[in-house]
Amino acid sequence: MEVNVQKCCELLREMNDIVILCHRNPDGDTLGSAFALHYILAQLGKRSRIECHDEIPAQYSYMLLDYKKEEFEPKAVVAVDIADEQLFGENLDKYRGKVDLCIDHHGSNKHYAKNWLVRDTAAANCEIIEDICYGFEEAELTKLIADCIYTGVSTDTGCFRYSNTTGHTHAVAGRMFKAGCDFVMINRVMFELKSLSRIAIEKEVLNTVEYHFDKKCALVYITKEMMERTGAIEAELEGVAAMPRQIEGVEVGITLRQRDNGYKISMRTGEEVDASIVCAKLGGGGHRCASGCFVEGDLETAKRTILGVVGESIGEKE
Amino acid sequence: MEVNVQKCCELLREMNDIVILCHRNPDGDTLGSAFALHYILAQLGKRSRIECHDEIPAQYSYMLLDYKKEEFEPKAVVAVDIADEQLFGENLDKYRGKVDLCIDHHGSNKHYAKNWLVRDTAAANCEIIEDICYGFEEAELTKLIADCIYTGVSTDTGCFRYSNTTGHTHAVAGRMFKAGCDFVMINRVMFELKSLSRIAIEKEVLNTVEYHFDKKCALVYITKEMMERTGAIEAELEGVAAMPRQIEGVEVGITLRQRDNGYKISMRTGEEVDASIVCAKLGGGGHRCASGCFVEGDLETAKRTILGVVGESIGEKE
Repeated sequence: MEVNVQKCCELLREMNDIVILCHRNPDGDTLGSAFALHYILAQLGKRSRIECHDEIPAQYSYMLLDYKKEEFEPKAVVAVDIADEQLFGENLDKYRGKVDLCIDHHGSNKHYAKNWLVRDTAAANCEIIEDICYGFEEAELTKLIADCIYTGVSTDTGCFRYSNTTGHTHAVAGRMFKAGCDFVMINRVMFELKSLSRIAIEKEVLNTVEYHFDKKCALVYITKEMMERTGAIEAELEGVAAMPRQIEGVEVGITLRQRDNGYKISMRTGEEVDASIVCAKLGGGGHRCASGCFVEGDLETAKRTILGVVGESIGEKE
Repeated sequence: MEVNVQKCCELLREMNDIVILCHRNPDGDTLGSAFALHYILAQLGKRSRIECHDEIPAQYSYMLLDYKKEEFEPKAVVAVDIADEQLFGENLDKYRGKVDLCIDHHGSNKHYAKNWLVRDTAAANCEIIEDICYGFEEAELTKLIADCIYTGVSTDTGCFRYSNTTGHTHAVAGRMFKAGCDFVMINRVMFELKSLSRIAIEKEVLNTVEYHFDKKCALVYITKEMMERTGAIEAELEGVAAMPRQIEGVEVGITLRQRDNGYKISMRTGEEVDASIVCAKLGGGGHRCASGCFVEGDLETAKRTILGVVGESIGEKE
């Protein structure tokens, strides 16, 4: 059943010994939602525990300040920021069909829970959690809760840059400031700090930049050998695919990543070229501005193949 | 005389044929303030012209959408985001002692104008311009004015990351969203787009990274030869000095830039080391977390010298 914030709060008030589920590969919004909700529930005298398929990455440790994982037999299950039960990961067997309440901001939510509060106009799920906090008269929006909510809002919008950001997102952030959130530390940890291996792989990737078609196209590549040499892991490549399109004048940015039998290609484009059409020629697809495809073979083959189809599209316009 | 927003609006209402002055090396806040004010004044049927020591950088061209520089003999002069007349640059002789109204957010404002509205709690001067817009009943906060104000707010806070950001800053941004500002384009242009030469110098700089003192210190350098080879200019190095301290675990980030007879050194530090104390040993200074100094001689001499004094500070703590 679909519920509103008020009904959601009533349901939470009836619960106790609650498991709060996060999605696998947890990000700032699912974790911010879970920990903020945990601290809200704690103020209501309720016991809750956060569960996730993956370990909580160390960078989010500031959210755990007042958290102590308690063992208990759950009497209720709440999922936050999870559109689909498949994202439970290893918790799928345990909790499939058993979620009492789902709080989510994905329009694609599968309505797998007994009750769901889904607001797809929210840039971050944490925007909904804020309303839930206000829904309980005895709950205070503490500095720690503000840190959690701000993290969700900031990370899910790329620090207020992505097109999903709204005036409401900024309004939420402003209220978290009033509650004393440590936005300088949070943004530094989320957006500025880079591991030694990330710095090393960035350097390697920059060394591969090549320009084509009168510099309207920039291409970079990442081989397995580069990953091994730098010790970088896949998660550290976030943002690297976007790099070529950040170069002035570049209409088509291409990133090739080596896989077992070929290269996975990410393409970002501006107004002139439709990435989904270009990638479709190689059996891939996606959006107008961001698409992908796969090319079998070695690096030179992959480059030649992708540049061939890009040339057709850029050529048509010249 | 110090004035409030209401008095400021009254003064503007009495003016006509107005020169709006920006500070030299114009940034998003001085330009956003100037163009927003120009468009507000245009709605009141007033003629105004923007003047600046430097050319307006091409990246801000979207602010000029409805702007046509008109020639007229100025009857009034307004300075925006300018703490000191010295920042007039080549306009100093023409306008020194002749500014009727200064709208600024620097606590260090020299009060050189006949009237000044200075609010040092504002992260961006554009926050004050917003209030001035609301001060005129007949002025509408158009999409174009919102683009100008958002630019000032976003650039002066490093996209809401710097410690000067406040809840009010977010509230202003939220209102600019409601007025339809093109925040995705603006942030892309201000924070993501990089010139070919910037990409080239970044790559060169990453190739110089070296770690010292158990990786608690990272050092990079930029020689004249690197600048010449990549075609990069000084303005494109913004952010490069901050790079070494973005590496995880690094407490002391050092950037050396070659000058005629030696190296200019920028130092960024975390909690453990006081950069101002370290730099003072070499005749420099600054803040706890960001300081600088100068070392005469070649690259090896400069490195050895700065690492010597850093070692003393890191050593004391070990």
